[in-house]
Amino acid sequence: FPLEGRSQKPREQGLTMVIDKGMGPVQTADLLRTSGKYIDFLKLGFGTSALYTGKILDEKINLARSYGVDIYPGGTFLEIAVLQGKLKEYLAFVKQAGFTAVEVSDGTVSIPPEVREKAICTAAEMGLKVLTEVGKKDPRDKTGIDFYIGQIQSDLRNGAFRVIIEGRESGKNAGFYDREGRFIPGEAEKILSSVTDPRLLIWEAPLKEQQQELILRFGPDVNLGNVSPFDVLALEALRVGLRGDTLRKAYLATKPQDR
Amino acid sequence: FPLEGRSQKPREQGLTMVIDKGMGPVQTADLLRTSGKYIDFLKLGFGTSALYTGKILDEKINLARSYGVDIYPGGTFLEIAVLQGKLKEYLAFVKQAGFTAVEVSDGTVSIPPEVREKAICTAAEMGLKVLTEVGKKDPRDKTGIDFYIGQIQSDLRNGAFRVIIEGRESGKNAGFYDREGRFIPGEAEKILSSVTDPRLLIWEAPLKEQQQELILRFGPDVNLGNVSPFDVLALEALRVGLRGDTLRKAYLATKPQDR
Amino acid sequence: FPLEGRSQKPREQGLTMVIDKGMGPVQTADLLRTSGKYIDFLKLGFGTSALYTGKILDEKINLARSYGVDIYPGGTFLEIAVLQGKLKEYLAFVKQAGFTAVEVSDGTVSIPPEVREKAICTAAEMGLKVLTEVGKKDPRDKTGIDFYIGQIQSDLRNGAFRVIIEGRESGKNAGFYDREGRFIPGEAEKILSSVTDPRLLIWEAPLKEQQQELILRFGPDVNLGNVSPFDVLALEALRVGLRGDTLRKAYLATKPQDR
Repeated sequence: FPLEGRSQKPREQGLTMVIDKGMGPVQTADLLRTSGKYIDFLKLGFGTSALYTGKILDEKINLARSYGVDIYPGGTFLEIAVLQGKLKEYLAFVKQAGFTAVEVSDGTVSIPPEVREKAICTAAEMGLKVLTEVGKKDPRDKTGIDFYIGQIQSDLRNGAFRVIIEGRESGKNAGFYDREGRFIPGEAEKILSSVTDPRLLIWEAPLKEQQQELILRFGPDVNLGNVSPFDVLALEALRVGLRGDTLRKAYLATKPQDR
Repeated sequence: FPLEGRSQKPREQGLTMVIDKGMGPVQTADLLRTSGKYIDFLKLGFGTSALYTGKILDEKINLARSYGVDIYPGGTFLEIAVLQGKLKEYLAFVKQAGFTAVEVSDGTVSIPPEVREKAICTAAEMGLKVLTEVGKKDPRDKTGIDFYIGQIQSDLRNGAFRVIIEGRESGKNAGFYDREGRFIPGEAEKILSSVTDPRLLIWEAPLKEQQQELILRFGPDVNLGNVSPFDVLALEALRVGLRGDTLRKAYLATKPQDR
Repeated sequence: FPLEGRSQKPREQGLTMVIDKGMGPVQTADLLRTSGKYIDFLKLGFGTSALYTGKILDEKINLARSYGVDIYPGGTFLEIAVLQGKLKEYLAFVKQAGFTAVEVSDGTVSIPPEVREKAICTAAEMGLKVLTEVGKKDPRDKTGIDFYIGQIQSDLRNGAFRVIIEGRESGKNAGFYDREGRFIPGEAEKILSSVTDPRLLIWEAPLKEQQQELILRFGPDVNLGNVSPFDVLALEALRVGLRGDTLRKAYLATKPQDR
């Protein structure tokens, strides 16, 4: 491959998290058979987990696990549970349903720091991989970047497996993206420089331009999230330099005498 | 669920109409098994019904019916039949093929009011659910809103089951949406105030922002159309408040002492 | 059909080339069964061919062939082979894997004219249908249109089956499209007037507006490429006038006394 150094599964970096907006079991099986080795996490987006009949949810969870893919419900769900004072019941349901991971976020509902900490610790003790999310879903929230940097650090300290940088499903006007889906200048670097290990962050990057920019900046093994099921193979091609945009970089990096 | 009051099937309100741009039978079955209870109408978009082999069309119609989903061909088809003076033959074909509904529109071809009336009455007498559509597909048509309000009222009087408010497949620069896909201010309200029962209208709203705005304005049981097959579960999550944008509303609506 | 003159398979014009970003075998089979007669070429986009396990690639190739659909790997692959000095090995692999066509492009890597010529001739002699591509993927390349016209003519002379006019997967800011995905004025005509037979060109047109414009300008039997698998039937409806935008043209073209 033109770009070298892509990690194989099970991997600690170069993670790909796919957002599932409601695939049926047949489509899920087809995707996993074809691209399962390029998928590390499958997120059942938003609160859709509650909208499947029990049997279909079981099938999807079993399929993901059989391909070594971690599967978890979208964070909105946990926020509702916290709102209703049912955090413990929620985590028990997640574990019992067969999910292997859980997301702790406060994109919509404000969650006190001590509740967040408790959610992370409890879930981790139950053997769930904890993914936390930082960044508001709504552009009207004006929280500064320093708050999020503090949150990243305390989440990791409390036992989070990875911290997800919010980008939403659309990739626009949320988290650290502007209305056009471009990074707000300087913010990505500031976040990155605040962690000891960049492999602990997963960047939500649903748009191809975002995936490309993150790969060009941070290398083929950057962790990416909210990837569409239809884009998994195209993203993998981007990672290994089998697509114009990253091939160009690999190509230009070769010494002139080698061309 | 955070937002209460979502109707169950068979329902009179909160209808979801899905636009099918050419799904194969396997994908159709997978969608219906997973999300059939959230789908009320399946529209075979544009004139695609004529492009399936007979066997595949049969399979799709039978699948939809077996899940209690009404199925019908896009309105372009009827417009062509009217243009060719073959309205009666067209309705007979629709009925005989097993479709359970029919769309009467004049988005492209001008249809005289008396022909429109006859189409609605005849189809209704044949036992088809008649969905009429108002609003031009082409922004160059400058017909005023009052004309459409008159059309809505006479369609319902003539036996239409529901009236669809045009939004096209793209949701932009058509019907009552501007180039960015946003409502033209005041028009939705003017249309709404002209009918005795808002449940008689189906709003074409292919874009997530449109779905969200209509749910926030008119409640979780607003009728929505031209929903992508890939968005059915995500829309249902929006309706019941299991997604950030509508959860926020449900959350803010709770009394502060409950938080 | 409202617009007449659509060619049937196997056809010399009105070709539809579909870009496959990573469909599983089940989805591929469902698509071909439903729409195979409207698809002439299936391109495994970018370098994704290298990312399938051998068995899945075999299944996809066999499926396409059984429906009379030519199948080939994206051009990025050949560019890498040239870069590595392995053109001959690459063409042997393409042939041996069962692909029926091959793409010769230099969208990312600069390929000397004599290497391009050799690639075209060698592949054609091996019995592969050769599709060449002209136009840069990157807007920073400032090559003038006259260069591409010369390339089209020499490619055809060297044995290319068709020449593809670059539009990328996004249809924006590449080839002869501007940032909004609109044709740069005059360029399409200039290209067209440079060939003796317009049927020798395939226009990459992933966006519906581009497909519509090309059909309205060049007729229902224009060759179109980079069509999404989800849009095949909708495009066919456009071609035969079963969709608002082209029906309008067919309708307006009828004599007033016929209306």
